[in-house]
Amino acid sequence: MIDFPYLQSITRKTSSKIIMLVADGLGGMQNPQTGLSELEAATIPNLDNLSKVSTCGVSTPVLPGITPGSGPGHMALFGYNPIKYLLGRGVLEGLGINAQIDGKDVAARGNFCLTDQLGIITDRRAGRLSTNECKELVKLLNTIEIPGFDFEVYPVMDYRFVVVIKGQGVSHEISETDPQIEGAEILQSNPLSDKGSSTALAVNMFTQESIKLLKNAKSKANGIILRGFSSTPTLPDFCENYKLNAASIAGYPMYRGVSGLLGMNVLECGQEFTDELSTLSKHFQTNQYDYYFVHYKPADSAGEDGNFNAKVKALETFDSFIPQILDLNPDVLVIAGDHSTPSYLSSHSWHPVPFLINSKISQSTPKMEFNETLFSQLGSAGSISAEHLMLLVLAHAGKLHKFGP
Amino acid sequence: MIDFPYLQSITRKTSSKIIMLVADGLGGMQNPQTGLSELEAATIPNLDNLSKVSTCGVSTPVLPGITPGSGPGHMALFGYNPIKYLLGRGVLEGLGINAQIDGKDVAARGNFCLTDQLGIITDRRAGRLSTNECKELVKLLNTIEIPGFDFEVYPVMDYRFVVVIKGQGVSHEISETDPQIEGAEILQSNPLSDKGSSTALAVNMFTQESIKLLKNAKSKANGIILRGFSSTPTLPDFCENYKLNAASIAGYPMYRGVSGLLGMNVLECGQEFTDELSTLSKHFQTNQYDYYFVHYKPADSAGEDGNFNAKVKALETFDSFIPQILDLNPDVLVIAGDHSTPSYLSSHSWHPVPFLINSKISQSTPKMEFNETLFSQLGSAGSISAEHLMLLVLAHAGKLHKFGP
Repeated sequence: MIDFPYLQSITRKTSSKIIMLVADGLGGMQNPQTGLSELEAATIPNLDNLSKVSTCGVSTPVLPGITPGSGPGHMALFGYNPIKYLLGRGVLEGLGINAQIDGKDVAARGNFCLTDQLGIITDRRAGRLSTNECKELVKLLNTIEIPGFDFEVYPVMDYRFVVVIKGQGVSHEISETDPQIEGAEILQSNPLSDKGSSTALAVNMFTQESIKLLKNAKSKANGIILRGFSSTPTLPDFCENYKLNAASIAGYPMYRGVSGLLGMNVLECGQEFTDELSTLSKHFQTNQYDYYFVHYKPADSAGEDGNFNAKVKALETFDSFIPQILDLNPDVLVIAGDHSTPSYLSSHSWHPVPFLINSKISQSTPKMEFNETLFSQLGSAGSISAEHLMLLVLAHAGKLHKFGP
Repeated sequence: MIDFPYLQSITRKTSSKIIMLVADGLGGMQNPQTGLSELEAATIPNLDNLSKVSTCGVSTPVLPGITPGSGPGHMALFGYNPIKYLLGRGVLEGLGINAQIDGKDVAARGNFCLTDQLGIITDRRAGRLSTNECKELVKLLNTIEIPGFDFEVYPVMDYRFVVVIKGQGVSHEISETDPQIEGAEILQSNPLSDKGSSTALAVNMFTQESIKLLKNAKSKANGIILRGFSSTPTLPDFCENYKLNAASIAGYPMYRGVSGLLGMNVLECGQEFTDELSTLSKHFQTNQYDYYFVHYKPADSAGEDGNFNAKVKALETFDSFIPQILDLNPDVLVIAGDHSTPSYLSSHSWHPVPFLINSKISQSTPKMEFNETLFSQLGSAGSISAEHLMLLVLAHAGKLHKFGP
């Protein structure tokens, strides 16, 4: 949680309702030809107008220069120190496919792979095994029994799967079996601390059994490699700490998973943003929840693809939904991003991300338009750490008492 | 090191090369007559043009309002928390004169002083003893033998010297013998912890022996006072942490000393900036190093002298060297300052310092010019802690992996 020990003593329950729209990969970079970023190039009149009457600023997800994955990016937006509360790869991948990961369970990412007669990995992806073949092989792995442990395997896509290990004393403090390169053997898992001894042994037994089963199945793959062993960290409860009854609306499982881990109520909805908005509209009138996290994915995907025009389009589409969200008349509407995804870099980046907070106590900035440059230069909230955004949001919602006498 | 525990897991070795030019005391303040700072008054077309196509911002060396010495100013620029890794006065003074300070050695600053018949200090500077006289007296002090310890004395300038104490169990946890005022006696050194007992005793013996020798020598000085007992802290290795092969190019011993302590390769070069540039040019082509720290001193000296025009001139001279540095075609050119030295204050100051990072992924800001005001108002990197500058530099060099899944 926010590094502010008095948080619980100053949060207060009120009737005001917050919608926090997170546009994944919102920030961008200039197109070298035009000198305009995706947001500057996009026709986004609703966002532009809203920015003129909102508290605007830019947020740094982790630290200057640090490019966050989706996990740290979202954790920071929810007010969780993204360094302290780092979600492991196995856990995040598991959340992304709705795997059941409880308490101290350990999750890992897995590949089906191909080895030669000497046990040397010749293809870490087993000839890019199809998803259907993967599903069949996963069924095989789920038949393996290891005393004292329960290995639950879930197919992901192509040659990839997730394994969730349950059992008394299971620990993620073990080394990976994936050498990360071809031309090396499948590694033995070794305990990284005393806690990991029995789990490492179980993982090695599971790997041996898998190899036997795959050999008999005469599949394209004849081995498995595991990495990113991780457990869910102990996380302060979002609803309790902020005194919010929070709902999460996201089409993608990973964001559903992360918000669920924090204690938000994950609402049923379809994959598309229009599905998310239907869910939002339906629940908003009920007064059941006073905070809604709503996730918009397409801007990030277009940025990752390195497609400037597609990102512009995704932002314009996002803009077109703003009026119907404003029609719900939330007390506070927040628009933020978990990180930048400049199409120029075809990847996430470290650049500060624009955010706005619209409420009846927001300030006006007539010259404002919704983009990185003006939010940074003219934004009344300035440049902040993303971890502190929730404090600003709660303040605009009238949900924070004065700190100290 | 930067307070980011995952640093080592995200740094990566690449072929890109970084030049980090540190203009000592770069930032300034307005001349009350013209309303222009030294940078604004200077004709610096190369820096102005470069700033238009670079990532610009301002850096706070330690904390708002805190004026750093050269030690903390540089430590922060190199990504070392300047509060956590504070170099002591004795060590810094010793590094400045090329004193040999190893491992747990203790260094201290010393004055030759004058006391009256009752042992009361009447002149802390012994009539501003000349450097030549100082050198002669230092020879005397170097003849003193204290069982179990080795006191190595180095002349500095005028009445000042440095003493480096070596020996089993030597400790800086002892009190100073310099009362810092006249009219008081030379103090006994006392241990500040159990560790300091034998060192305090040795320092007191050394002081007594010095007094005897000085008396016999019939010099202007008849006593010594010591302060700033310190050892070099355990410092994370710069090259290892950033996966860089770093070189340091500085004419002044102190900057050579500090960068050497961090593990940079200190290259031989003359005192002048032109000597430094020759050294840079010679090595840059070899691909032996992928990071060069290059130090420019004159702006600070002019600021300390309170000479606005001289500082303007020093900045213009600095500007004139930029083309030949750009001709080397580094992947990343950083221009930064360790602190501000406004001639208006005739001293270092706390003011945020301009920095720019030029690389092929820097953004353009056509209205930018190289000065405190515009960097602060328009800079796309905003206002950051100097300790985080190295992260931004590494990001621009493509030397950082994504953090977290």
